[in-house]
Amino acid sequence: MINCSIVGATGYAGEVLIELLLKHHYIKIASLYAKIENSQSISNIFPKFKGRLDILCNPFNINELNKKSDLIFLALPHKISMEIVPHILKKGKRVIDFSADYRLKNLTLYKQYYGVEHTDKENVKKAVYGLPELHRKEIKTAVLIANPGCYPTAAILGLAPLFTKKELIDINSLIIDAKSGFTGTGRNPMPNLLFSEINESIKPYKVNIHQHAPEINQQLGFLSKGKIKITFVPHLVPIDRGIISTMYVGLNRSVDFEEFFKLYKNFYKNENFIRILEKGKNPNSKDVLGTNFCDIALYPSIEKKQLIIISAIDNLMKGAAGQAVQNMNIMCGFDETTALI
Amino acid sequence: MINCSIVGATGYAGEVLIELLLKHHYIKIASLYAKIENSQSISNIFPKFKGRLDILCNPFNINELNKKSDLIFLALPHKISMEIVPHILKKGKRVIDFSADYRLKNLTLYKQYYGVEHTDKENVKKAVYGLPELHRKEIKTAVLIANPGCYPTAAILGLAPLFTKKELIDINSLIIDAKSGFTGTGRNPMPNLLFSEINESIKPYKVNIHQHAPEINQQLGFLSKGKIKITFVPHLVPIDRGIISTMYVGLNRSVDFEEFFKLYKNFYKNENFIRILEKGKNPNSKDVLGTNFCDIALYPSIEKKQLIIISAIDNLMKGAAGQAVQNMNIMCGFDETTALI
Amino acid sequence: MINCSIVGATGYAGEVLIELLLKHHYIKIASLYAKIENSQSISNIFPKFKGRLDILCNPFNINELNKKSDLIFLALPHKISMEIVPHILKKGKRVIDFSADYRLKNLTLYKQYYGVEHTDKENVKKAVYGLPELHRKEIKTAVLIANPGCYPTAAILGLAPLFTKKELIDINSLIIDAKSGFTGTGRNPMPNLLFSEINESIKPYKVNIHQHAPEINQQLGFLSKGKIKITFVPHLVPIDRGIISTMYVGLNRSVDFEEFFKLYKNFYKNENFIRILEKGKNPNSKDVLGTNFCDIALYPSIEKKQLIIISAIDNLMKGAAGQAVQNMNIMCGFDETTALI
Amino acid sequence: MINCSIVGATGYAGEVLIELLLKHHYIKIASLYAKIENSQSISNIFPKFKGRLDILCNPFNINELNKKSDLIFLALPHKISMEIVPHILKKGKRVIDFSADYRLKNLTLYKQYYGVEHTDKENVKKAVYGLPELHRKEIKTAVLIANPGCYPTAAILGLAPLFTKKELIDINSLIIDAKSGFTGTGRNPMPNLLFSEINESIKPYKVNIHQHAPEINQQLGFLSKGKIKITFVPHLVPIDRGIISTMYVGLNRSVDFEEFFKLYKNFYKNENFIRILEKGKNPNSKDVLGTNFCDIALYPSIEKKQLIIISAIDNLMKGAAGQAVQNMNIMCGFDETTALI
Repeated sequence: MINCSIVGATGYAGEVLIELLLKHHYIKIASLYAKIENSQSISNIFPKFKGRLDILCNPFNINELNKKSDLIFLALPHKISMEIVPHILKKGKRVIDFSADYRLKNLTLYKQYYGVEHTDKENVKKAVYGLPELHRKEIKTAVLIANPGCYPTAAILGLAPLFTKKELIDINSLIIDAKSGFTGTGRNPMPNLLFSEINESIKPYKVNIHQHAPEINQQLGFLSKGKIKITFVPHLVPIDRGIISTMYVGLNRSVDFEEFFKLYKNFYKNENFIRILEKGKNPNSKDVLGTNFCDIALYPSIEKKQLIIISAIDNLMKGAAGQAVQNMNIMCGFDETTALI
Repeated sequence: MINCSIVGATGYAGEVLIELLLKHHYIKIASLYAKIENSQSISNIFPKFKGRLDILCNPFNINELNKKSDLIFLALPHKISMEIVPHILKKGKRVIDFSADYRLKNLTLYKQYYGVEHTDKENVKKAVYGLPELHRKEIKTAVLIANPGCYPTAAILGLAPLFTKKELIDINSLIIDAKSGFTGTGRNPMPNLLFSEINESIKPYKVNIHQHAPEINQQLGFLSKGKIKITFVPHLVPIDRGIISTMYVGLNRSVDFEEFFKLYKNFYKNENFIRILEKGKNPNSKDVLGTNFCDIALYPSIEKKQLIIISAIDNLMKGAAGQAVQNMNIMCGFDETTALI
Repeated sequence: MINCSIVGATGYAGEVLIELLLKHHYIKIASLYAKIENSQSISNIFPKFKGRLDILCNPFNINELNKKSDLIFLALPHKISMEIVPHILKKGKRVIDFSADYRLKNLTLYKQYYGVEHTDKENVKKAVYGLPELHRKEIKTAVLIANPGCYPTAAILGLAPLFTKKELIDINSLIIDAKSGFTGTGRNPMPNLLFSEINESIKPYKVNIHQHAPEINQQLGFLSKGKIKITFVPHLVPIDRGIISTMYVGLNRSVDFEEFFKLYKNFYKNENFIRILEKGKNPNSKDVLGTNFCDIALYPSIEKKQLIIISAIDNLMKGAAGQAVQNMNIMCGFDETTALI
Repeated sequence: MINCSIVGATGYAGEVLIELLLKHHYIKIASLYAKIENSQSISNIFPKFKGRLDILCNPFNINELNKKSDLIFLALPHKISMEIVPHILKKGKRVIDFSADYRLKNLTLYKQYYGVEHTDKENVKKAVYGLPELHRKEIKTAVLIANPGCYPTAAILGLAPLFTKKELIDINSLIIDAKSGFTGTGRNPMPNLLFSEINESIKPYKVNIHQHAPEINQQLGFLSKGKIKITFVPHLVPIDRGIISTMYVGLNRSVDFEEFFKLYKNFYKNENFIRILEKGKNPNSKDVLGTNFCDIALYPSIEKKQLIIISAIDNLMKGAAGQAVQNMNIMCGFDETTALI
């Protein structure tokens, strides 16, 4: 029985993480922390947990956290995580961090996109990017997991097989047009996140300046052993959970559906959470809602020498808490699908 | 040409009010004010007005307001209005106030429901409750209109014909179960108004303690010349605009549909914005969306000696800005439907 | 290992039932049937099951069904179930029927509300109304479960403790004002169920003539040993899943919150899926979304000698598939919460 | 006073068209037709029109239609229009056709995308593509307007200024990723258009095979005097009305925001319904909801020699009924904005 704690338990990712941990037979929720004035029952914060989990959620306390926990989930905003992580690792505890603080190896880019100097450069080197489909081996022995962003998860999983065959593709042509529900924007009350601002709207934001772009570039760069610079335009649509990532790549030669289908099926042949859709099927974010699956559809155009790839995930599952539990399962030697299927 | 100004132009009611005034041929939007740090174009606040209305919205300035305006709309929170109204009336300008500050004649109830002592008792006496279907005559010559609340509008219009025949009804049995969209809760960023809190939820709130209850009691009391104490339970559902008010009244004798239908048709026979539905038709908030109509359906039960009345309005139109424009039309001698149909 | 089959697997209740059975460790999904022309993979009908359940869904075949199954779920429309049930029971298989066909003991009412003569009167007598909180003992040994309707479940659970103390209440005063999401209306393509008809609307329907009223009357009648005739007004709001049932009852004497709270807590003290909310807390359909819980809040008015009870369920869980699995767990001697928490 | 009739009055575009014509001071709604068994009041079909328009909607009757009308709107499905149009033109009446039947000049493409041989080739030649910003002059004297599709309107308006400067752009690189609300899919009851199928989902469809692609190709080809073959991927999101069209084009040289802004402002300098957004502003479909505006934002990347253009329209206004009224205003010599602002 592993003692798990969550710091930042009152956000949307924290809520889903609690949900998953409650279903997990081999772990115990040891303690919960959040940016709150006074301790209160987590079922007071999330009434849905009433009768299922009635422990306290407390103001953050590093000593208590370390004492009570074997493995710690940090579901904190960017910049806060890097102040806490060193104090946890020093005590020999393992961390799965939901923030962007340990995702980028290039700290110049970190500063550019997050606006501050990184204060824990040492641990950035140790951190493993927690996308099991690409880094399962390192995850097994990692002490610090940088849990991937939601957009990067959808994009990288949809592109990885292709970027291992970079002779096929015109790497600089890559365009990612993403559509997401609103839980990805967090649970802080901001005027533009009110129901009646968002309901009945579709809107692009951070066009080509979103902080997830360098994260995608980095992973695709690793895969293709080159420098990548994607075009990335995210959009928000009025649903709670779900991402559709529509990706456009130019090809160096005409390739038919069968060849791509085989490439993808083969690349992911041992994966539990990747589903490659048959010809003629379109993905739908509702088909992965509440699951840890990533659905991927392939639409090559012989005539235009182009491939369109569309991937679908639940941003709070495969895009956050589900992926974190998958990482934990790998780190702890549990069956990778525990609490996830 | 009447010069109109809006104080509190940046809320949802203000937005719809601007929309309506832009369509109005006999008025000019003279100035706009809101609780903002610096002046900015209203089309910066509401991009939908770009190219249609590009005047500035300014921090509040009472002297400028009075100088520029013939008639002033106050779309302000409760308690703020009563600080401003005396300074406007003193200059001989007319006011249509969207807040609750001048709706209740009983200031003990005002204190009980709004938590503060009323500071402008003198003008409360002058204020006319701006429900044209009941108070058209007084509205014509009013200098201060207390524009009704959204729930009270739906409820009172649905009940008025009945409460003029109080021998028919068991007055104490009245129950009002209301369902509303979210624009009625205002545009202040609060955690429980975030999209993902509200989306896919139905929730009751302020059960039997909502501040609109005394307002309904007061008007029904005027009509029936007695003391009324309703049961009132409001609920929020995830739509932008719309109220369905479902009302249950016990009857002193069995009455059939035809009798009620005649009573209602006759009571509202000269009204432009009241539609009494035929037998077998159900109201739908979407049928009045964007309009100033109030739809009313009647369901008497012979066997149970009971009448169910269901009314539907758009809370931002007949429940706020539409009704305000209707009041203005009456005050200024315009056709009552100008800019509203 | 119990072999379970579902007839009517392609509706919303069938979908959630499959979801739950997939999580259940002691049962096997033996076969699936639906009103379809040709056999097809269930993951073709519900792409969400791809990779999790890829068996065929077949046109109905009574012999195959009986051969393959120990326990059969019928998620069929009213009137179809009663044609099939006799053929299943004859073979000694157990049935959990989602339709209304075996809920009403009074077959005159059945004819009145469902428009046809009942064709299986014999088995109506054997059928047990599958609300575990009231009928657990009979469910244990039942061969035919009439799984309750969604509105009746929310209403009866909210009222049961009260109706065992009928000296407290004015039984004829009971009013039920219910609000429901759209999955309760089924998955048949009808013009008034299109997205853009429903989105952004609130609408009452079947005012005082809904077929769930006699079902509620019957159960409340059993509890109070008297004849009940409720007022019942259902409304539809644009969400997928969730019911809020707001109930109004007159009291014969003033009763405070504490007394009601104790009554309800005590009545449900051994129940896993009933949560009585503390004073000051309001239910929210989103708090029970995806769960088998029924949340109940109590609002007595000393002054008006009235009790308002508000209950919340997920119509596809406690209101359909979740309750069916709970019933199965009881019938089969499994832990009652298996696959449900 | 012009006598206007609508054939196909019961769809979403018909509904909005009626709404607009009711506001129009210079026209009269002469008659309404739809695919219905028996005549019924239009306010029975759309209860929102009760008290505003209570004329009958009738089964189609060509003779009556021609007798009663000066100008006819056909809001019919593809393939039906071309059977009716010749009979109207023969009588000297003018037609604004919402279907695709007269949009494509290349009838081989028509057959490829719509599946049937065109039966009215003669009138295809006469038809004017009703996008006023490009074809105002021809519209003035046209007898047959092919009212543009919703996706083409958003796309072509966003691209037109650019395609008149084709030396700037890599024409073959054009990618259009569109997101639309559901009214665009029509009002026929189909299983995949039910509320609970669509709510909380994002889904691509007809990837690179949508019938609006050749329409866009044709107009861009006229502008650039070349053959165009776009990549076009439409997506559906759960809102009623609104399209966001996100377009990606490679550039032949680096161009900054100012140059593009000037190009667009200049191109549309006399237009009432086109708004070019300032640097830093993102479009939002809700900003054009209920209006005839097309908002356009420009995001050039110096580094990538790429331009991203994002346009927003209301698919039922500028994308259907609003544009039709704009065309009518031009044809009849009314102020172009009548009933539209």
